[in-house]
Amino acid sequence: MNTNRELKALFYPRKIAVIGATNTPGRVGGIIFNSLKGSSIERIPVHPKEKEVQGVPAISSPELLPEEVDMAIITIGAENAVTAAEQCAARGVKIIVIVAGGFGEIGPEGKLLENRLKVLPGRYGTRILGPNSLGVFLPETGLDTIFVEHGDKSLAGGGGIAFITQSGSVGVESLGYASNIGFGMRAFVGLGNKCDLNESDFLRYFAEDEKTRCLAIYTENIDEGKAFLEEAGEVTRNKPVIVLKAGRSAAGEAAVSSHTGRLAGSDRVVGGAFRQYGIQRAIDDEELADAARVLSLIKPPLGNRIGVITGAGGYGVMCADYIEEPRRRAGLEMANFSGETSARLKEVNLPFASVHNPVDITASAGDEIYLQTLDALLDDPNTDIVICISFFAPPSITDNLIGKIARRVQEGRKPIVVFTQFGPFTDEYLKRFYRAGVPGYPSILRTVRAVRFLVERGEILRTQGELL
Amino acid sequence: MNTNRELKALFYPRKIAVIGATNTPGRVGGIIFNSLKGSSIERIPVHPKEKEVQGVPAISSPELLPEEVDMAIITIGAENAVTAAEQCAARGVKIIVIVAGGFGEIGPEGKLLENRLKVLPGRYGTRILGPNSLGVFLPETGLDTIFVEHGDKSLAGGGGIAFITQSGSVGVESLGYASNIGFGMRAFVGLGNKCDLNESDFLRYFAEDEKTRCLAIYTENIDEGKAFLEEAGEVTRNKPVIVLKAGRSAAGEAAVSSHTGRLAGSDRVVGGAFRQYGIQRAIDDEELADAARVLSLIKPPLGNRIGVITGAGGYGVMCADYIEEPRRRAGLEMANFSGETSARLKEVNLPFASVHNPVDITASAGDEIYLQTLDALLDDPNTDIVICISFFAPPSITDNLIGKIARRVQEGRKPIVVFTQFGPFTDEYLKRFYRAGVPGYPSILRTVRAVRFLVERGEILRTQGELL
Repeated sequence: MNTNRELKALFYPRKIAVIGATNTPGRVGGIIFNSLKGSSIERIPVHPKEKEVQGVPAISSPELLPEEVDMAIITIGAENAVTAAEQCAARGVKIIVIVAGGFGEIGPEGKLLENRLKVLPGRYGTRILGPNSLGVFLPETGLDTIFVEHGDKSLAGGGGIAFITQSGSVGVESLGYASNIGFGMRAFVGLGNKCDLNESDFLRYFAEDEKTRCLAIYTENIDEGKAFLEEAGEVTRNKPVIVLKAGRSAAGEAAVSSHTGRLAGSDRVVGGAFRQYGIQRAIDDEELADAARVLSLIKPPLGNRIGVITGAGGYGVMCADYIEEPRRRAGLEMANFSGETSARLKEVNLPFASVHNPVDITASAGDEIYLQTLDALLDDPNTDIVICISFFAPPSITDNLIGKIARRVQEGRKPIVVFTQFGPFTDEYLKRFYRAGVPGYPSILRTVRAVRFLVERGEILRTQGELL
Repeated sequence: MNTNRELKALFYPRKIAVIGATNTPGRVGGIIFNSLKGSSIERIPVHPKEKEVQGVPAISSPELLPEEVDMAIITIGAENAVTAAEQCAARGVKIIVIVAGGFGEIGPEGKLLENRLKVLPGRYGTRILGPNSLGVFLPETGLDTIFVEHGDKSLAGGGGIAFITQSGSVGVESLGYASNIGFGMRAFVGLGNKCDLNESDFLRYFAEDEKTRCLAIYTENIDEGKAFLEEAGEVTRNKPVIVLKAGRSAAGEAAVSSHTGRLAGSDRVVGGAFRQYGIQRAIDDEELADAARVLSLIKPPLGNRIGVITGAGGYGVMCADYIEEPRRRAGLEMANFSGETSARLKEVNLPFASVHNPVDITASAGDEIYLQTLDALLDDPNTDIVICISFFAPPSITDNLIGKIARRVQEGRKPIVVFTQFGPFTDEYLKRFYRAGVPGYPSILRTVRAVRFLVERGEILRTQGELL
């Protein structure tokens, strides 16, 4: 099977059947059928009784589906869903997405139903996403099968991150999070119970997808562990792969088993294997999203020496504290500026500024000093990456700073990561930075953590280079 | 000197002189004079040339101040500020707040100016806040001398947290943060360079202030270290004291010296001393605010055994992972429910729910199941504190849950801490929880971290009890 070609039908279907599409408000089938309206995809509602759904003529059974249906989304309950899936597969539907839960995750009874699904790909050549899956969301085309209420999906789109999640709730919340400060989804895939398609299949797909710059995966148990690691290891030569494998603790592992009905696998083994294969590990959903943001937006630095600019002394101090904290992930160092850089910093800064690293330009400095300081650090031979602490409260700092920092990021001299906070406007400012191509975070911890991911990515690439 | 009585003049002045009050837009003196309009305090503008300021008749020099001026806010530049302070002190002004920077923090020249201020308290009995201070903000009366643009201060008020900060920027950003999700300030004090009043003075004041439930302090160098520790240790018998002492790392320490012109003090010594005296330590501004929120809102638990409720399996797993992570601060354990509790959980939950800890009620559960599960955990003899993972995306979960969880917090059976996320509505939901008296956080890390502070507070109280 050529899974990548098959997955094209999932991401770029021309004809979609929605099994369970309905006019009854609040039902999943109706919600999904309605949200597909925005795309240019032909929709076929399937409902046993309703003659037309939301103005589109309906058919009464999957058995009556026309030929060349690329995708069927089955929105009805578990038992009926299995029958419908069998009918869709027999009609030659290429991809079936099953939304309903009530399968392997609820016990032996559900497992029996799931087993009936498992035979379909071999028998008919159809592929199945789910069951218990939120389906897919592809901002590029407006394809959207996610029926749960969450953040404004339009704000989550337009980026380079392929987000693949086993858990529906983690998926939904991440989408909501994405809409807050811009997560930049290339695509969203809810794996659900993985009775057929799993993380490895999508790994392969997004590895070859040009618009994907970074893969972020949430999983509780990895199918075909060794194969996954090897494939992911291959992908990391070209694109960062970040995996959040929940169930690190004993209690977490036990929760995974009772939640998914499978074993979580020993955490230490997982951690070691990830490192070996160049897979970057996140330990919670926020970290996964934060890492994906920075890795999808900018290139890794050549080293781990950090220069910090701040107009607020206290934040410079806290930032230095985080940078020098020993961590499992990539160790960071405060850059030791060259003599020339120090002289230049003295020249452009106010007399009472502190021109050591972290450079405290003080709250009296304006855009001009900020940018001259930034340029000095970008030129400094002992600095690999710059953290810009950007507050907009000081009177001489203007919003123009955003665009000016962004221009320097686009020039690609050195990576820049921003920490900004501005009371109720924080998210808005983070979005503005993001839209300009600059990764930004609302806390020091998250900013330095993102820098660690970026430095780690650089280390992975260098290690792989040495191995070649 | 009875500092506490003197500080009454700072927080409850009847007459305030604003030196440098002006009609010129954008000037600090004009901004402060204007923001004091909202209070019932009598304002006296002092300006060498302007005859009236914002409609209030002005006097031309501090030398012409009437008697019984409680407080003078000096908004003019460093050198003139010192002269004005001398004049105010000679006129018997009780408290002088000096806003301008350009003192000890800029070098020897500034230190000389600062020395002229230092003699005034001894000579005239006046007390000085600053220089380089943002002054005070007391939501109760509308007293507000903070001139820097930031979040909506009205949203930051009405709580039990006294926030004392050496750094202006950390203060401003924390106020902004407070306005996002409700930090609940009883009072805000910007210490600045501490030429007279320092953290120990305010520690004493807020220890006796009935409306203060928790003290949060940001400092880069502690004056009178031993005395501060002893006083803070005393205060912790009645109220939690959380201190963020920046400059943990070598680079951070160096930055503190060049930022404040003083030594930061060895970090390890600081950490050990804090523990000994029952002072809780935060390592960044977000952690300080998060800890203060939970400690000001609810009582600590009797132990460290955590019960977790979730409707989203993945988040339960990640939460368990964080809980079982070993940390310097209070160790946490996942509660091992009693047989009776387990039976009760089975009875109230859906058949496919997972009733081990973390309890996964599944996305199919509604308010009723959520609350019955919560009650079972609140009654469980092996559970000390409950983390409620509250998502509002599931169709059967309604906003009523907020009030119902709040009622259980008010009943005071056991502490409850909430983790909630809801895309762009997250802050709004956190605010609603906060207004109902429930501490809530937008990430698992922050939720579990807050629980650690609460458990640590319980341990401190128990240790002190044993020592008595």
